[in-house]
Amino acid sequence: MCHHCVIDSVKDRMLSRRDFFKGGAVAGAAAAASLAAPAPLFAQKAMPTKAEDLTHELFEAFPTFFNEQQLFKKALFNYAEHKFNINEWRFNEHTGTHLDAPLHFSADGKSVAEIPVADLVCPLAIIDIRQKAADNADAQVTPDDITAWTDANGDLPEGACVAMLSGWGAHLETGKFRNVGEDGKTMHFPGFHIEAAQMLMEAPSVKGIAVDTLSLDHGPSPDFAVHYAWLPSGRWGLECVANLESLPASGATLVVGAPKLRGGTGGPSRVIAMV
Amino acid sequence: MCHHCVIDSVKDRMLSRRDFFKGGAVAGAAAAASLAAPAPLFAQKAMPTKAEDLTHELFEAFPTFFNEQQLFKKALFNYAEHKFNINEWRFNEHTGTHLDAPLHFSADGKSVAEIPVADLVCPLAIIDIRQKAADNADAQVTPDDITAWTDANGDLPEGACVAMLSGWGAHLETGKFRNVGEDGKTMHFPGFHIEAAQMLMEAPSVKGIAVDTLSLDHGPSPDFAVHYAWLPSGRWGLECVANLESLPASGATLVVGAPKLRGGTGGPSRVIAMV
Ligand SMILES: [Zn+2]
Ligand SMILES: [Zn+2]
Repeated sequence: MCHHCVIDSVKDRMLSRRDFFKGGAVAGAAAAASLAAPAPLFAQKAMPTKAEDLTHELFEAFPTFFNEQQLFKKALFNYAEHKFNINEWRFNEHTGTHLDAPLHFSADGKSVAEIPVADLVCPLAIIDIRQKAADNADAQVTPDDITAWTDANGDLPEGACVAMLSGWGAHLETGKFRNVGEDGKTMHFPGFHIEAAQMLMEAPSVKGIAVDTLSLDHGPSPDFAVHYAWLPSGRWGLECVANLESLPASGATLVVGAPKLRGGTGGPSRVIAMV
Repeated sequence: MCHHCVIDSVKDRMLSRRDFFKGGAVAGAAAAASLAAPAPLFAQKAMPTKAEDLTHELFEAFPTFFNEQQLFKKALFNYAEHKFNINEWRFNEHTGTHLDAPLHFSADGKSVAEIPVADLVCPLAIIDIRQKAADNADAQVTPDDITAWTDANGDLPEGACVAMLSGWGAHLETGKFRNVGEDGKTMHFPGFHIEAAQMLMEAPSVKGIAVDTLSLDHGPSPDFAVHYAWLPSGRWGLECVANLESLPASGATLVVGAPKLRGGTGGPSRVIAMV
């Protein structure tokens, strides 16, 4: 099934569900409640028993997209002298494991503080492209990868975050995380293909996408195509996510601990999955 | 029952539970598994259906303990000029709704990055002292308040965070949040009594305490007694928590989205409860 067919089949299912709900007064009332209800927080059926940390530790030399230091630590008080410790930090919002809010790539989209909290808790669908990323650093999540996921795991859960697992987290502390090519500037790491982003935007409820690399767009992208399509639509992105390999492809629940910065375009986040 | 009796009764219950488990081989095996298992993530029995945001929005004039501005925002890129937005922020770790790590009040306790992720997800017990806080701004959570909670709700859940709901969140944007007295310096807001902190430290598994005010210690505290007792014991605190009044006294699950700052003594956190 090509990805257009997937979308058509999603639309067909929605349509037939509506028709089904129209079948009678009682069913109609149930339908109204059901359609009005927000997406469930949890996709799994059993109560989660384990928390996994999807967050890299933040350190001053954390690799950055622009290759300049974006995090600075300064001690304000220290235990030896003051009997307590306090530091001050300075950071670019797009540092470490962090969220991209709609405002990052739009004139007036939602800031990180304006994203409803219910949108920060959602089912997590993990698309594993480690094989092709190992073969090609410029690999992208394509519509076919999404179709392969739904073929194996069923429909995307309502209100999901769809995450790319490229295996790039293992390269964090080496030059391969940015992976600059022979021209001395173009980076080479995996990301989402614009057609995959567009396909997910056709789905009614996907809340976010996540990558284990420095950008939603793959390294050689000349135009931030995915950023410009995805974020202005009101959805969020997560970059530099860690530890996705510890989770099942389907069934985990994500909690995005994004900082509630007034007017923030995103920020370093504590990202936790529960399984 | 005085608080010493409560502690004794907790100890008695633990002892008799151990004795019970010793009763036979099968029970013994179950006991071993049960005692070795980490505290369950969720206290509630049904799958959570709602997320509540316990985080105040972070803005530059957020009130601070030392009464000096601790958060600074600077635009690095703006949409009109660059077609995307990015800001830089500078903050004192103890600003806004934030976590106190053991390292904050100890020479070598755990930093915020070293707290195990499983300790950032836990059952939430809320002790409502709004009545007495309305009568007395210097009110404290006492051992009697903890006993009243357990009388009404049963034992504290294993691995809980115990939160004080004083109603102080409503004062955030007024002078009453710091509530400086006639001497022009002493603050007056509620906090934990040192004896309540000590009582909770006798409980085997309480992970954290939380307050909806500027400090774990109440405003007039001359000595940070609760900070110095609680944090060096390896437990964490949360200050300036919002919105506790939207939750039940028992049954919610807390997720503390603390920033994973290397060597951090705490930091502005996204705190989310699920019910
Ligand atoms: Zn970003
Ligand atoms: Zn603090």
